[in-house]
Amino acid sequence: MTNFIDGGLKQTLQRRWITGSTEEMENVGKHDRERIGKRGAIARNFVDFMKIHKKHLNRFYVPKGRDMMYMSMGQVGGGYPGFGLFLATIVGQSSPEQIGWWLPRTYTMGITGSYSQTELGTGSNVRGLATTAEYDKSTQEFVLNTPTLASMKWWPSSLTTSTHTVLYAQLLIDGKEYGVHPFFLQVRDENLNTLPGVEVLDLGTKVGENEVDIGLLRLRDVRIPRRHLFEKRQHVEPDGTYVKHDLSGENGAADSGKGHYLTMITARVSLVSTACVFLSKGATIAIRYSAVRRQGFVDNAKGQSYRAEQNKIIDYNMNRFVLLRNLALAFAIRFTSNWLTDCLDTMQNNPAEATADISELHASAAGLKGYCCNATALGLEELRKACGGAGYLKASGIAALEADYKWRATAEGDTTVMQLETAKYLMRACERVQAGENLTGLSQALNVLRDPSWTLSSARPEAPTSADALTSVDVLLEWFRFRAVAQVKLTKDALDARIKAGETFNEAWKALTLRAVYTGQSYVLYFMLSKFAEMIRSCENAACKTVLERLCALFALGDMAEGRQWHGLFDIDTATMVEEACSAVCAALRPDAVALVDAWDYTDAALGSTIGAKDGNIYERQFLAAVESDINQAGRPEFLDVLEEFVDKDFLALHNKPDPSCDPDDTSSYPPPASKL
Amino acid sequence: MTNFIDGGLKQTLQRRWITGSTEEMENVGKHDRERIGKRGAIARNFVDFMKIHKKHLNRFYVPKGRDMMYMSMGQVGGGYPGFGLFLATIVGQSSPEQIGWWLPRTYTMGITGSYSQTELGTGSNVRGLATTAEYDKSTQEFVLNTPTLASMKWWPSSLTTSTHTVLYAQLLIDGKEYGVHPFFLQVRDENLNTLPGVEVLDLGTKVGENEVDIGLLRLRDVRIPRRHLFEKRQHVEPDGTYVKHDLSGENGAADSGKGHYLTMITARVSLVSTACVFLSKGATIAIRYSAVRRQGFVDNAKGQSYRAEQNKIIDYNMNRFVLLRNLALAFAIRFTSNWLTDCLDTMQNNPAEATADISELHASAAGLKGYCCNATALGLEELRKACGGAGYLKASGIAALEADYKWRATAEGDTTVMQLETAKYLMRACERVQAGENLTGLSQALNVLRDPSWTLSSARPEAPTSADALTSVDVLLEWFRFRAVAQVKLTKDALDARIKAGETFNEAWKALTLRAVYTGQSYVLYFMLSKFAEMIRSCENAACKTVLERLCALFALGDMAEGRQWHGLFDIDTATMVEEACSAVCAALRPDAVALVDAWDYTDAALGSTIGAKDGNIYERQFLAAVESDINQAGRPEFLDVLEEFVDKDFLALHNKPDPSCDPDDTSSYPPPASKL
Ligand SMILES: Cc1cc2nc3c(=O)[nH]c(=O)nc-3n(C[C@H](O)[C@H](O)[C@H](O)COP(=O)(O)OP(=O)(O)OC[C@H]3O[C@@H](n4cnc5c(N)ncnc54)[C@H](O)[C@@H]3O)c2cc1C
Ligand SMILES: Cc1cc2nc3c(=O)[nH]c(=O)nc-3n(C[C@H](O)[C@H](O)[C@H](O)COP(=O)(O)OP(=O)(O)OC[C@H]3O[C@@H](n4cnc5c(N)ncnc54)[C@H](O)[C@@H]3O)c2cc1C
Repeated sequence: MTNFIDGGLKQTLQRRWITGSTEEMENVGKHDRERIGKRGAIARNFVDFMKIHKKHLNRFYVPKGRDMMYMSMGQVGGGYPGFGLFLATIVGQSSPEQIGWWLPRTYTMGITGSYSQTELGTGSNVRGLATTAEYDKSTQEFVLNTPTLASMKWWPSSLTTSTHTVLYAQLLIDGKEYGVHPFFLQVRDENLNTLPGVEVLDLGTKVGENEVDIGLLRLRDVRIPRRHLFEKRQHVEPDGTYVKHDLSGENGAADSGKGHYLTMITARVSLVSTACVFLSKGATIAIRYSAVRRQGFVDNAKGQSYRAEQNKIIDYNMNRFVLLRNLALAFAIRFTSNWLTDCLDTMQNNPAEATADISELHASAAGLKGYCCNATALGLEELRKACGGAGYLKASGIAALEADYKWRATAEGDTTVMQLETAKYLMRACERVQAGENLTGLSQALNVLRDPSWTLSSARPEAPTSADALTSVDVLLEWFRFRAVAQVKLTKDALDARIKAGETFNEAWKALTLRAVYTGQSYVLYFMLSKFAEMIRSCENAACKTVLERLCALFALGDMAEGRQWHGLFDIDTATMVEEACSAVCAALRPDAVALVDAWDYTDAALGSTIGAKDGNIYERQFLAAVESDINQAGRPEFLDVLEEFVDKDFLALHNKPDPSCDPDDTSSYPPPASKL
Repeated sequence: MTNFIDGGLKQTLQRRWITGSTEEMENVGKHDRERIGKRGAIARNFVDFMKIHKKHLNRFYVPKGRDMMYMSMGQVGGGYPGFGLFLATIVGQSSPEQIGWWLPRTYTMGITGSYSQTELGTGSNVRGLATTAEYDKSTQEFVLNTPTLASMKWWPSSLTTSTHTVLYAQLLIDGKEYGVHPFFLQVRDENLNTLPGVEVLDLGTKVGENEVDIGLLRLRDVRIPRRHLFEKRQHVEPDGTYVKHDLSGENGAADSGKGHYLTMITARVSLVSTACVFLSKGATIAIRYSAVRRQGFVDNAKGQSYRAEQNKIIDYNMNRFVLLRNLALAFAIRFTSNWLTDCLDTMQNNPAEATADISELHASAAGLKGYCCNATALGLEELRKACGGAGYLKASGIAALEADYKWRATAEGDTTVMQLETAKYLMRACERVQAGENLTGLSQALNVLRDPSWTLSSARPEAPTSADALTSVDVLLEWFRFRAVAQVKLTKDALDARIKAGETFNEAWKALTLRAVYTGQSYVLYFMLSKFAEMIRSCENAACKTVLERLCALFALGDMAEGRQWHGLFDIDTATMVEEACSAVCAALRPDAVALVDAWDYTDAALGSTIGAKDGNIYERQFLAAVESDINQAGRPEFLDVLEEFVDKDFLALHNKPDPSCDPDDTSSYPPPASKL
């Protein structure tokens, strides 16, 4: 199974090689964050990053395909995200000359970088950024300013530890707006102090990942050379003429016109693959804990001894459902991301062979990023709660995973905004189909809508005759295809109706975001299910295949049992069967549950969990982590001093002896005995 | 509206008086938690608690009715929870002599206390606790031990700052088990060092509320006097005879037989009321932010200037739905909790007048605790995400609310376990109805099941003819009643079928927890909706009433659009109307959104939020909080030192000037221009 998840033995070896090196990190397995504080954590995190990467970077090793995913599999702590975004921009936005100037220094960490796009006032609406870069002909420089409070850069990861940053700003030449462009900006000097006109500050405490520094940036008349505008796609001539480059010759399709999407798609694809890493780590911890933790007597009869046998919590079918469903989701995300990564690789390396068209990939990567990151954040929280109180301690590992993960549902495209992009694409696709076009690729399911007589009731799959029938991947696929098409149609109809009634597209769309977001999601889920089904078809080991079919069915059934856009699409008998099928599949998966998380092959160090280690030694590890924690290091905690002025020292001198001033034989007020036991 | 939420002008004044005093707290409005560290935060939190409460406690003021809720409304930080649980036990479990010995010292804080029930190995299954208290006749003492690793006390809030604790242990006399009992145990001496045989340690960092200390406790042959067993309900005679007390004479119904439930019910009711406090604070922050924050051009046309007008994010109907739906939930919880509190007051003060019977109240308080605390935790996270990246900073207030709140979904009865209690009660009620009994009170809706010819299809309300019809509270109430009854019936049928097939009740129930939990929830929601509807009927102000009707409808419709147990209960036309009705109600509520959160009457200090203050000054406040944060206090952060060994100082000496070793005129590789703009 491990090899199958990885996509082959070679991949498994590559993954182990990459994750292996992270075992040297200082962050691994430590529960001392409170002690070293945020400052210490930032320093350690940076040093760890250097330890792991410097040697590879020095030889210009470029992570390819799934390497980034593997890194996050071995990693503990947030890494150095600014570096990745900075590097991607240098690679993707520079002219060849600029590559020569900046790339080697970036690789060798002679400069450290970050990515300054978002502003205090502007996140999702990138076109609305308000930092300005005005071209000054006389000196051939751009003058950079964050002219208002709201236009200060806000959120650049790793900014406070950066010497340089990619600055996104409105390019203005002779008062004319040319739109948002990236610039290469130095922020710190050779003594690591900020340069004149540059103000860099830390943003304060976040929900999680506080070992990653995040900052704000204000600029006041900072001047940079004309050629520090990233020049791959355009440049400005000395006289201020703005020249856009024609890239159609280069790299074929991948770089023509929509080529600048590729960087964004790459970022989103990598977020999809990180999602399954976090979720599978969470499932590993929670499933291992639940398979050891016992709570509740097997036989609950009155008079039972307190030492009687108790159930494992994984055997309550609510918990079992939550645990296995999220594990199934991790598999679904993994297979989708494997496909996405391959697809992207093909597009970058052999554009001619690429099967998916780029705008389609762009639209689905958006929806997948939106759904997968959000579902992972929610899933981690479900898994955390399934561990009861244990999950509320950071040392459990799962609490930290959840808190550290969840910014990803917001950054690089908020969930809502991402799913809307997919939905918008689907609306256009629907329009094309209705105009008679025949779609290929991801949205070809919509082709049935070409038939104007298509109706919900005629398209609905046959009602299942038993819960068992609903565990078939093919049957489920049919239902998911039906739902996706049906919801696209309903949303399109609602949109058309509003536009017909006189609303503009923008008005109608703003009023329909709720429905549209879920329609995007319905389609994404159909898409993921079909990728999962494809992977199963390619599996040659029969035992593996059976288990994967069950996971796949559970991924689908779990959504049918809960998913919003199923309302009204099936009747109560089917609803009951869906629930029965969920329970049946969970029961069938139960014996394999622990093996299935073991297959993801995480080391104890990478999990950093007191309750999810391989040995199942949950109580001892929790206790030892507590002993190690900050407050227990130095005898009586000094905060007890604040009690001194309140407490009654005479009474405390009793030391659990009866109070001599009270009569221990005064039992005058005992009520009459009820019964003698 | 403020008075109506509070339940009258008198209540408003009482609330303001109570919350007013919290404005003196040190914790209020500070964003310096990183700087003062966990030790500092614990000390400050304790001192704050004393500042507020000492003067009231000294005059033996006992918080009544909703006072506890009011306190949490004004409060910032977790308070001193151990105190509340300790005090409640002293009051609820002591004999009159013991009250005399211990209560005055507890009130005056001559001793500080905590509540040690949960163990590392035992949480939900309280009967399985493994700490032992063996009676030693020869000295008339109990010998206390946590004999195994798993039996150490784990989680007592405020334990490390406690001089005493309530210890739950298995009472053993002459080798015989008498079950779990509470004991009065001193843990620290007059110098605040732990007593011999007593080990107290901190548990380490939690997800939130780290200003509340939480500890572990190990005991090794610690001896306490015979009379330090809490003796209200039983005592042990010198010779080891165990005597249970007959309390039927005292306090009437409230203390007969099931009377010990009252403490537990009180705790759960207070958790329900805290839920609406947190949720309404979260809604206040998120709605105020969303009504000011703009993101996305009104007119999205190409070539738009970046300074063009943008939409307020509350006007995207996805965000509007999330915001208002959670606000509606806060109202629903508030009205339910007002009713619960009153009900409990009556039961405690005039048991004769109490309308609900105690086991019914017990069952519904469990389900309400389970649902409301979990829904609040989820709602806070939705609200946090609706703020985009801003919600990921602790200073936003909403991030802290979410992290600090969520242990409440687990503690004092995990969500699953709580909803199962309600479900179990419903199964018994259903059984009684099916046996011909006529129920009164909360579960009387089940009476229709007395008719053996009852079927889902005959009981289903008429399908609505328009979305508008679905905004009527009465219509919605009918649907919710139908769903609750239908799901109880389906679950009961499934249970009966399993038992008939040979499973024991325990086996069948374990296998049905998933369905049972949601059935409990369906009933709880019907119950909350009916309380909401009752409150509306009592509202005399027409404008207020209209708004409340909309909130009530949204509370119901939101669940119809998403709720699990609606699947198969209505068709696609109704599903579409549900969605339209949601949007319509949200649109109707939009103009009142800000006024509705203002009505909860939180001071800026109580919210502690950079983005949710009354003045709407979101950008300046976020910036100032960042400036205040720890890392920005002392010039160049020292963690930059770790960069020194890597960076290229020569390159950094350029200070944003062109690199003299590069030819700025080398543009040899520019591709041909695409177009001149
Ligand atoms: C931990 C973290 C790290 C980050 N790192 C970086 C970084 O390195 N560099 C960088 O430049 N940025 C970074 N960001 C910023 C991040 O990219 C933004 O937070 C993200 O783009 C969302 O923007 P916002 O926070 O302004 O939310 P907003 O855009 O204000 O969104 C707020 C709410 O409005 C909704 N909304 C907005 N527009 C629409 C619309 N058109 N239709 C419907 N709903 C809408 C959203 O769904 C959301 O619910 C980081 C953020 C975080 C939290
Ligand atoms: C911040 C915080 C403060 C606390 N303060 C105190 C305190 O002051 N004093 C104190 O004594 N305790 C305290 N607790 C402990 C708290 O009461 C327990 O965490 C709670 O009772 C749950 O028990 P558990 O954590 O052992 O979870 P478990 O009981 O182990 O539950 C784990 C999982 O199993 C499921 N499960 C368990 N039993 C069943 C069943 N019968 N049927 C179906 N599912 C089941 C649960 O739903 C949960 O998902 C605190 C906890 C926290 C997090």
